[in-house]
Amino acid sequence: MTVQLLGISNAIVDVLAHVDEDFLKTIGAAPGSMTLIEKDRAREIYNQMGPATEMSGGSVANTVAGFANLGGTAAYIGKVKADQLGTIFNHDMRSLGVDIRLKAAPGGAPTARSHVLITEDGQRTMQTYLGACLELGLADITPGTVGAPKAILIEGYVFDIAEGPQLAQRAAEIARGNGTAVALSLSDSFCVERHREVFLEFVRNDANIVVADEDEINALVGAADFDATLEALQDFDQLFAMTRSEKGSVILRGDEKVEQTATPVETVVDTTGAGDAYCAGFLYGWVNEKPLQKCAEYGTHCATKVIQQLGARIEPGLLDDFESL
Amino acid sequence: MTVQLLGISNAIVDVLAHVDEDFLKTIGAAPGSMTLIEKDRAREIYNQMGPATEMSGGSVANTVAGFANLGGTAAYIGKVKADQLGTIFNHDMRSLGVDIRLKAAPGGAPTARSHVLITEDGQRTMQTYLGACLELGLADITPGTVGAPKAILIEGYVFDIAEGPQLAQRAAEIARGNGTAVALSLSDSFCVERHREVFLEFVRNDANIVVADEDEINALVGAADFDATLEALQDFDQLFAMTRSEKGSVILRGDEKVEQTATPVETVVDTTGAGDAYCAGFLYGWVNEKPLQKCAEYGTHCATKVIQQLGARIEPGLLDDFESL
Repeated sequence: MTVQLLGISNAIVDVLAHVDEDFLKTIGAAPGSMTLIEKDRAREIYNQMGPATEMSGGSVANTVAGFANLGGTAAYIGKVKADQLGTIFNHDMRSLGVDIRLKAAPGGAPTARSHVLITEDGQRTMQTYLGACLELGLADITPGTVGAPKAILIEGYVFDIAEGPQLAQRAAEIARGNGTAVALSLSDSFCVERHREVFLEFVRNDANIVVADEDEINALVGAADFDATLEALQDFDQLFAMTRSEKGSVILRGDEKVEQTATPVETVVDTTGAGDAYCAGFLYGWVNEKPLQKCAEYGTHCATKVIQQLGARIEPGLLDDFESL
Repeated sequence: MTVQLLGISNAIVDVLAHVDEDFLKTIGAAPGSMTLIEKDRAREIYNQMGPATEMSGGSVANTVAGFANLGGTAAYIGKVKADQLGTIFNHDMRSLGVDIRLKAAPGGAPTARSHVLITEDGQRTMQTYLGACLELGLADITPGTVGAPKAILIEGYVFDIAEGPQLAQRAAEIARGNGTAVALSLSDSFCVERHREVFLEFVRNDANIVVADEDEINALVGAADFDATLEALQDFDQLFAMTRSEKGSVILRGDEKVEQTATPVETVVDTTGAGDAYCAGFLYGWVNEKPLQKCAEYGTHCATKVIQQLGARIEPGLLDDFESL
């Protein structure tokens, strides 16, 4: 079976808990931020947290899972250890039919986990211990592991790994040789700040598609607001899929521009994974060669579903809903 | 701080997934049943399951967590391994202020997990691998680990462990010496069938309180229906708290009888833990010396909350609601 989408990203198990805003103050976390933390700090925060629920996560991993749930054929490259959390991560992917391309590491750092602290407003603040993810290396990216999918999707967070920039580069080279499209997810505006020049170069030279939210894309082009960003993006040949929370989303490629409104929802349970779900729907449309307007509708539909549940991965059965879109 | 409730039970992490009824047929599981499975079978079922969510579980462990959430002071005896799931289990308990009395075992079988398969009607079917729980032994029950709480609550499932009947006996002896009340949860009607004579003897000689659902209590006294059970229970001195799903609950002690109606709910999400939550509310009332009618109301309130969420443990904040009861 031809793989439509291969994801390359940090393989993370989410540890989700509801907290009040005082908790964020206590641990010194900015509401809505994603902070990378060391093992000791991870233990400290976990010890202070209330009861939690564990489920597989990771931004692009969520997208790949969502894409498979929609009926797409997917594969995945990410590093877990052969521990219980690694088993959970790989199980959840495989159970959706995702082809896991790397073996769980027998040794090294434990499988990554992200402490997802959800406040009453449905916002998430993440404290992430990358563990095994940091051991993803250039050697893991080969013609054999990448294959020849219709598209690969690389996560911006991968550039936080020591060999990240090189392995993204190699993946893009293999993709180019096979006529595979390269998509980059910008992950997080702080991540964009950390790697702005490298990201810009990667977008210009290697990427065909860029997926981002408003803050991330503004940070990438260094624009003060979204209008200035749209202006700046005229200089690029890439296809940009950009989410703007309640303002909907914009798809842009040169002169071509599609605007999609957000669907109002009664109660936002948890915004975790809204962008990842949008990306899954969008790319599902794209690999199936739907018009961009349709791709935007698919993305919006998935994001709308995911913010009404606890957790970042969309439930099976969304494809049926697509028939009515 | 004086401990009000000490739980002794199987320490289990739940692996929850939605399945359709065909899945239950495929694995040969009777809907609504709890089956003990071996390691290989556990692996087989997990491999066939869809994406799951992990959260701490175990029947009496849920009750203890709920009791602590209500504001009660609680302690717990149960066996986990010092692996990732064991860390999760102990963390979730400790984060509620529960005093964990046993150290996680450095070796031996992995921490137990129960595959909780939830069908569309909200019913749960459990396939449980007991792992480390089976290594709970007589040596773990000492005056030091049991202490002198107001009540201890032992789970019927503990009698499935090799040293289970003896350790329950020893816990009851220590309790008796300290004026501690002994409560037994009957766990599951199949469990009652497995241990009926031992349970009857334990109830008559060691227990002050019995918590059960209708099927379990019918099985214990060998009655064909609930009316016959009520008749048979006239011969006992113990306090019986019995849940009957949508028919509400009945509290009985000799001639004294309290009937409590169930609260209708719009959507049952997942019945996992309804009985455990009832038990938490009931015992919270009991240790605080509330009238039996109030205890039944507390239990009902907790059960009503838990069936409207995914997962067996009630969320914090229920105590506030109690003020209005």
